[in-house]
This record gives sequence, C-alpha cells and structure tokens, in this order.
Amino acid sequence: MKVLVVTGSKSDSHIAEKVTSVLDEFGVSYDLEVASAHRDPKKVEELAKKDYDVFIAIAGLSAALPGVIAAHTVKPVIGVPISAKLGGLDALLSIAQLPPGVPVATVGIDNGKNAALLAIEILALRDERLRKKLEDYRERMRG
Amino acid sequence: MKVLVVTGSKSDSHIAEKVTSVLDEFGVSYDLEVASAHRDPKKVEELAKKDYDVFIAIAGLSAALPGVIAAHTVKPVIGVPISAKLGGLDALLSIAQLPPGVPVATVGIDNGKNAALLAIEILALRDERLRKKLEDYRERMRG
Amino acid sequence: MKVLVVTGSKSDSHIAEKVTSVLDEFGVSYDLEVASAHRDPKKVEELAKKDYDVFIAIAGLSAALPGVIAAHTVKPVIGVPISAKLGGLDALLSIAQLPPGVPVATVGIDNGKNAALLAIEILALRDERLRKKLEDYRERMRG
Amino acid sequence: MKVLVVTGSKSDSHIAEKVTSVLDEFGVSYDLEVASAHRDPKKVEELAKKDYDVFIAIAGLSAALPGVIAAHTVKPVIGVPISAKLGGLDALLSIAQLPPGVPVATVGIDNGKNAALLAIEILALRDERLRKKLEDYRERMRG
Amino acid sequence: MKVLVVTGSKSDSHIAEKVTSVLDEFGVSYDLEVASAHRDPKKVEELAKKDYDVFIAIAGLSAALPGVIAAHTVKPVIGVPISAKLGGLDALLSIAQLPPGVPVATVGIDNGKNAALLAIEILALRDERLRKKLEDYRERMRG
Amino acid sequence: MKVLVVTGSKSDSHIAEKVTSVLDEFGVSYDLEVASAHRDPKKVEELAKKDYDVFIAIAGLSAALPGVIAAHTVKPVIGVPISAKLGGLDALLSIAQLPPGVPVATVGIDNGKNAALLAIEILALRDERLRKKLEDYRERMRG
Amino acid sequence: MKVLVVTGSKSDSHIAEKVTSVLDEFGVSYDLEVASAHRDPKKVEELAKKDYDVFIAIAGLSAALPGVIAAHTVKPVIGVPISAKLGGLDALLSIAQLPPGVPVATVGIDNGKNAALLAIEILALRDERLRKKLEDYRERMRG
Amino acid sequence: MKVLVVTGSKSDSHIAEKVTSVLDEFGVSYDLEVASAHRDPKKVEELAKKDYDVFIAIAGLSAALPGVIAAHTVKPVIGVPISAKLGGLDALLSIAQLPPGVPVATVGIDNGKNAALLAIEILALRDERLRKKLEDYRERMRG
Repeated sequence: MKVLVVTGSKSDSHIAEKVTSVLDEFGVSYDLEVASAHRDPKKVEELAKKDYDVFIAIAGLSAALPGVIAAHTVKPVIGVPISAKLGGLDALLSIAQLPPGVPVATVGIDNGKNAALLAIEILALRDERLRKKLEDYRERMRG
Repeated sequence: MKVLVVTGSKSDSHIAEKVTSVLDEFGVSYDLEVASAHRDPKKVEELAKKDYDVFIAIAGLSAALPGVIAAHTVKPVIGVPISAKLGGLDALLSIAQLPPGVPVATVGIDNGKNAALLAIEILALRDERLRKKLEDYRERMRG
Repeated sequence: MKVLVVTGSKSDSHIAEKVTSVLDEFGVSYDLEVASAHRDPKKVEELAKKDYDVFIAIAGLSAALPGVIAAHTVKPVIGVPISAKLGGLDALLSIAQLPPGVPVATVGIDNGKNAALLAIEILALRDERLRKKLEDYRERMRG
Repeated sequence: MKVLVVTGSKSDSHIAEKVTSVLDEFGVSYDLEVASAHRDPKKVEELAKKDYDVFIAIAGLSAALPGVIAAHTVKPVIGVPISAKLGGLDALLSIAQLPPGVPVATVGIDNGKNAALLAIEILALRDERLRKKLEDYRERMRG
Repeated sequence: MKVLVVTGSKSDSHIAEKVTSVLDEFGVSYDLEVASAHRDPKKVEELAKKDYDVFIAIAGLSAALPGVIAAHTVKPVIGVPISAKLGGLDALLSIAQLPPGVPVATVGIDNGKNAALLAIEILALRDERLRKKLEDYRERMRG
Repeated sequence: MKVLVVTGSKSDSHIAEKVTSVLDEFGVSYDLEVASAHRDPKKVEELAKKDYDVFIAIAGLSAALPGVIAAHTVKPVIGVPISAKLGGLDALLSIAQLPPGVPVATVGIDNGKNAALLAIEILALRDERLRKKLEDYRERMRG
Repeated sequence: MKVLVVTGSKSDSHIAEKVTSVLDEFGVSYDLEVASAHRDPKKVEELAKKDYDVFIAIAGLSAALPGVIAAHTVKPVIGVPISAKLGGLDALLSIAQLPPGVPVATVGIDNGKNAALLAIEILALRDERLRKKLEDYRERMRG
Repeated sequence: MKVLVVTGSKSDSHIAEKVTSVLDEFGVSYDLEVASAHRDPKKVEELAKKDYDVFIAIAGLSAALPGVIAAHTVKPVIGVPISAKLGGLDALLSIAQLPPGVPVATVGIDNGKNAALLAIEILALRDERLRKKLEDYRERMRG
C-alpha cells in the first residue's frame, strides 16, 4: 500500500510537509513528487498511471492537478487547495467543482493534515492495524 | 462491502437518486437513510457507528451532516453539498472547511454522481472486479 | 443564571476572552470550556445537555459547534464565527445557515463582545438589575 | 410576554408568515408591523421603544432594520436576512456584521422559522410550559 | 456651503483624514464628527437634521451610518465603506444596497478621496470658482 | 437644470425606465441615450462633455460607462449596476471601485429609482421647490 | 489559418454556437469538437497538438479544458467560462487563475462572442482583409 | 512587431516589471507607459490608436484600462488584474466581464508573466524563431 503525494509547485512544500508528517506518524509509505499539470502534463500523466493506492494532489490558483490525475486513474485522488490568491477560493472551486464522471475528494484550504488522514482512512479499510491507529489517534485528540 | 447514503432532509432525495443510480449501475450494496445532524443527532450518531465501509452524506445550507458522521467514525465519509441557498456556496464551505483532525471527502455542488464514483473507487481498492467496471465506465465516457 | 462559553479549539481563546471580559464586567457567571464538535462530539453533547441558560459557541472554518450544541438543547445558543480562512466567511455561513428547526443566534465575525451582550440581553429579561446595567452600558457608549 | 414581528417592506410578508405561523403554533402573542428603517425611521424608533420582550426584524438588501431596532432597545433583537439580491448575501452581511456594542441575533437567509424558534427559546427561559412545548416540537421533528 | 464628515467610530479617522485633506485643498468648509448609528442613533439623527449641504458618512462592517443619515435628510449623502472585515465587502454591500426610496452615493472601499471629490462636484454645480478648481485638479492629475 | 440618462445597451431600458419615471414624477428635464463605453467610446465622450448638471449611467457586466463619463466631466455622475451576470456583483464592483481622483456615485444593483432620487437631491440644493417635493415624497413613503 | 473550437461537454453547444456564428460571419475556418479534459484527456492532448493557429476552449465548473490545452501547445488558447453553477464564478476562476508559465486568454462568463472576436483579432495581425472586416464590424456596432 | 505595456498607475510598476522581464528574455520590443483610463482618457485613447501589435494593460480596482484600450483598437488587448482591494476580485471581474463586441484577453490576478507569454504566443504565429523560443521555454519549465 503506497500513497503518492504530489505538489504543483516547489513553493507548495509547506503543505506537502503537513501531509507527510501525518503519513510518517502512521507509518504509511509514500513517494513525494513535484509536477505541474500545466507546465509538465506528461510527468503528471505518468505519475497518475503508476500503481499507487491513493493520490494526494496539492495545488493553488486554478489547481488543475488533482483533476488531471483523476482523469488518468480510477484510484482515489485527494485534492488539497492552497491559499495563493483570493484566500484559496479559486483553488477550492477548481478542485471541488469537477464535472460528473471524474471524482476528486476535496479537503479544506491548506488542510494537508486532513488529506493524509483521509488517505489513511481509505487504506485502513483493508488494514486492521491502521484502523486501530486511527481510533487511537481520535482518542488522543479528545484528550 | 456496503455504503450508507444519508440525506439531511427528505427534500434532498433528488441528489440521493443521483448517488444510488450509479451505485446500482455498479452493483454496489447500500442503505438509504434520511437523518438530520441538527434535528436528529442521535440517529446520525447511531448510523455513523454502524459497520459501513463508506458513508455518503448529502446536505445543504450549513451542511453539518458529513462532518458529524465523520466525528463518529474512522471510515471514509464523502460529503455532497446541495445548492439550497447562495448557489450552494454555504454548503460547500461548511463541508470542505472541516478542522484538521476529522476529514471529509468533499465533491462538487449537487454532484451526487461523483460521490458514488468516489465511493466505488475506494471500494475497488480491494475488489478487482469493481476496478474493472470503473475502467470500463471511463472507457465508455470517452466514447 | 449561568452561561457556558465554549470554543472549538484552544487557538480560539482570544475570542473567548472578548466574551468573558464582558460577562465579568456585568457580573454574569459562566463556565469556559474547549470542546470540538468534530474531534470530541461526546463532550460537546454532554456540555449541551447541562443546565445552562445560554450557550455561547465560538468556532472557525466549518464551525459546526454552535449547531451541534443547538441540536442537543432548547436553550438559546449564540454562535461566533472566527476568521481563520476566507476572512471568516466560511464560519459565518456555516453558523448562520442552519436548517429550519434548530436555531442559532449568529453574531459578527470575531465579535465576541456582541455574543456576550446578546447573552446578557437574554438573561436581563428576568433580571431587572442586569437590564439596568445594560442601559447604563449603552449610555456610556454614547459618551 | 410578547414579540414584535416587523418587516422592512410589505413585500417581505411571506417571510413574516413563516415567523407568525410558528408563534401561533406555540401560542406566543405577537404584534405584526411594517416599518422601514430608511423610509420611516421615526416609526421604527417608536416600535423599538415599546415594551416587547423580543423583537424579530425581517429585511432584505442593506437590511438596517434589525440594527436600528437594536440601537433603541436592550431587549433581544433577532434579524432575518431576505434574499432580494445576490442571494441574500448583502442582507446577511448587513445584519450579522453589526459593530461591537449593539448585538443582533442573526438567523439564516429567509429562515423565518428559526427566528420564531429562537424567540421562543428565549421566552421559554422563564416559562416552563413553553420549554416543554419546544421539547415536544424537537421530538416530533425526529419522528 | 458646508459639508459634514462623520465616522461611525474613532478608529475610522484615517479615512476621515483622506476626506478632509481634499476638502482643505479645495477650501471647502466642513465639520467633523464621530457618531455611531448603532451606539448613538440620537446624535446621528440630530446631525442629519442640521443644515449641511452634503453629508459624507464613513463606516465599516454593517455600515448603517450613511443610510441612517439619508433617512433623516433629503440632502445628498455620500457613503464610504471601510475594510474592517472581509476586505470591506460587508460595508460596501451594506451601503450600496439601500432599498428604493432613500438613496446614498457609494464610493469605493476606503476611498475617502473620491467621497470628497464627489461632494465638491455637487457643490460646484452652484459655484463656478469650485468648478474651475476641479478642472485644474483634473488637469494636474494628467500631468 | 437637466439630467442625462444613458444606458450601455438597449437591453438596459427597463432600468432606465425606473429612472425616468421618477424624474418625470418630479418634473425634472432629462435626455435619454444609449451609448456603450466599449462599443462607441466617441459618443460617450461627446455626451459626457455636454452641459448636463447630473449624469446617470446604467450598465451591467464590467460596467465601465459611469467611470468613462466621469473621466470626461467634473459634473456629478451616478452609476447604476445591472444584474446581468453573477447577480450584478461584477457591475457593482466595476462601478464602485473607481480609483482615487475620479468619483462616481454608485447606487444599488438595478436600483434606478435611487439614482433618480439622488440626482434630484443634488439638483434640489439650488431649487427650493424641488426640495419641497422631495420632502413631500418622503412624507408619502411613510404613509 | 484555422481555429479549433472545443467544448468540454455536449451541453455547452449553445456557447459554441455563439463562437461559430461569429467565425462564420468573418469567414474564418474552424473545426468544432467535444472533448472533456477530465473524461477524455488523450483526445484533448491530441487536439491540442494539432496545427491550429488559435484554440477556443469552452467549459463550466472546474473548467480545466483551456489550461490542459494550453499545457500542450504554444499557440494562443482562449478560454470561455460557462455559468453551470455559482453563476459561473467557479469556471471563471478556474480558467483565469492559471499558474505563471502557461497562459490562457480568458473572456467573460458565457461570452462566446468575445472569444471569437479575440481569435479574429489575433489572426488579423497577419491578414489585412480580416482586420478591415473587424474595423467594419466595430463601425456597425456604433451604428 | 512591438508590444505596448501600460499601467493605470505608477504604483502598478511591480507587475509591469514581471511583464517586461519576460519580454526582455524573449527579445520582444516594447514601450512602457503609465496612463489612467479615468484620470487621463485622452492619453489612453492616443496610445490605443498607435500601431502596436499587442497591448498589455495592467490595472487594479475597477480596472477599466484594458477595456478602454480595446474600445479604440482591433489589435489584441491583454488585461492583467491587480490585487489592490478584495484580493483583486474587483479588478478580475472588471476586466473579464466585458460586454459582447469588444474582447479583452484576461490573465490571472497579478500574473504579469502570463500576460507577456500570451503576447509572445500571439506574435509567434508569424515568427518561427519566437515560436522555437517558446518551445524551449516550455521545455526548461519541465526541467
């Protein structure tokens, strides 16, 4: 089981770190890439066709990255909008408002943590140990 | 493998039908419920604690339903915002902007179809037959 | 007569202080709690069922806290949206746009002062001395 | 115990009816008036100074009515924004964003029902019978 | 010929200074007051009934001040929205969206300069010397 | 004393009629023109340089008409935004957010009535009879 | 010289017709295709790599089509946002807010006519006859 | 082949520099001017009538500059909205929402780089060498 974490630009690394620190905490394997849907579509397509279980795509502005990945895979794709302009409303709408047929799971603006947790929830459907960790994590949050 | 489809109000049934017609097409089992996070929180809590693999929660306005379900489960929860007021912007923000720690996978406004497809993508991670159906579905879309 | 002031996160304490400094000024008793509707729904439910006269719930982002409290009580609930993202528009819509049946009294973004004053106005309906204090307070504002 | 229901214009009567039908159902006394904060400020001021327990003010567009009433009373004022233009966002912001010092309890756009229920919750603080009715009402909603 | 410049709060004085520096430059007489439509409606009413030729009202948030002045006079009232929250969108909508019957001349967010220039344009309709100054001012802008 | 009422397109005539019916009611002279700032800038410039006392410019979408007229005159220009797209938010911002130096008096979306009343308030500064009519009009509104 | 007009969905044909009727009027050759960036990315890529002089891409919702085409060509790409949800604000932001490096020329919501005219202006840079037609067209608009 | 880069105000020079640094990199000739559509319309008209191949107009707030230039030329006009207020939403809508008949090619908020690249794409239609440079530029972005 492996996750791909991909940002549209190097400047989005602070959000990628929110994602990877949670994946690390849960012991989930991942690869980390930078690939822009607009500047390097070929690389995005190649990454999307690799055999990851879940994709987490992080992007700001018109934020096509999550949708472009989703167009090339039937694996779950999670999109994280970044607040580069307009408080991130542009990225949120660009990711959430995908047309019927190609879904992306959108999380909140700059909310890399929830992207990671959602990926783990998906992986935990076939991994009892991971599910137990999630339940412990929730328990600690209540603390 | 089973999905729970739940709407916050009976008046949201037209969106629930978009969800269930896709689940039917893919032969995925589901239960369909109406339960408001504000008017009947106990029922929502009970549903959230049942052993479904994926939850699809459909709600308009302040749209707390997906988040309240997510608060009671570590299974993936998909939220569908409905355009009741302000074109659905209120529901989209209410669902997408969950605080770090409790994720919901948001899809587009009124986009029940993508909620169903996202659920199927998640279930297909451990069901080769379902994955094949998804690939065929994508192929037909290209038609 | 007693008020519960509850924030969804410790980081909201600067707004809670706006509330409590006004309650202190008017000599109104209150308890102060931190409880997230998403991370600790059980605690929120327990607090909501306690015998407070008025609840003041402070939250940002999708801000479900005021509505979740309102779902468990028929006492007046006042909601304060916080400007965490999008200038607080997300929290304002999440609190104000509750569905018919379960009301919350929304005040302005980050406006803890008005939440306290509204609570005091409600309590003053059966406390002449408090009403007199409110009138004096208004008089001083004119100064 | 008596409520004043006031609309800024005759054309807002469909929202006033949502309010009064709930007040009627709960047996709460009220007066119903039409008075514009901009076209007839003197009448608004006179109404605001009358001895009502709760005011419910309904207005669209720049929606000054609830705030102007609140400026003349220390009784609780509930504001209902109407969707005349921009889906009601203008009225929602005009009512919710009052400056610190003069509170209004804002409910959702066109949500006259919640305005009435909030008024009843406030009145029920000193009326056991009314509180019981509210609890029954909630119970029926769960039905 | 005299202008009243009034702000809803002392904290709006930086915008008032933009107004008065232009009025000074053109040699137009004015009075400067602080009066909140919500905290001191009586003072606002008294000011509005004085014999000024033009009123310039500056306010943020729900920004009722310009409309409340307009309700008490048939002299031209110019409203300046301030960016206190939401970038000033709340104040802009609160001032611009007045109901039919009571007009306010809205200028841009924080744009005290244009409020002053608009007042001068109005006064210049009966003052040739002032009109000449405006034309010179425009000429210099082209420089 | 004469007003120019100008729309950016023939399709805006329903708003122009709101303006002219009020001007007719008050016996104020006006000319009515159609001239687009983008399609016929020369005509707009010529109209702006004519000797009208007040200009009322009506436009939707990016709504440059009022600002372009203001660029060519130091007479008061009133702008009326029309709800062609996005509920008129585009036109409202395009008219209200003029840069410092060239003012336009913005009224509410589609609010031709207030544009006319504002023009009359401006003209009434040097016409006692017109001021009396405005006061009577206000009186009747209170009726 | 040839233009490609491409819509993201068959349901966008009413906007495509606005484009093609102008291209027809000016005698500009074009091909018309339907290809979704999300449902059929391979087809979009193939179209983008063909030897057209200008691309006009029409899409609603998250509207990735124009940007995806631009990612595969250095020819000018014109994007037309469609008002499917939220009045078209989602599509406008998705098209306009492309990241630095890959430009798209955005026109107004549903404004197929301007997309065609912009394409013709671009082509007219090397076609005197076409430029003359544009000047005549402008002349007639002034009519 | 020559481009005109024009800003509405001296304070917009940081965006103009983004444009000119790209034009310099590609060896494209340009002139740089400051001219406000509202403060100096005559200068804008004169510039618009000069024989440039492409115009790049940069403006904030109500941002009429690109549209006013487009009104005086049938050459391609590229508009760059600046984030002066409301995160640049006002300028984006003012530029993008031009009425049918007079097109402007809008790029993203503060995105001077894409304005320059779009201009170069247009010029490259008749300049093989420039097209080759664009392809190299894209190639390097992939690096």
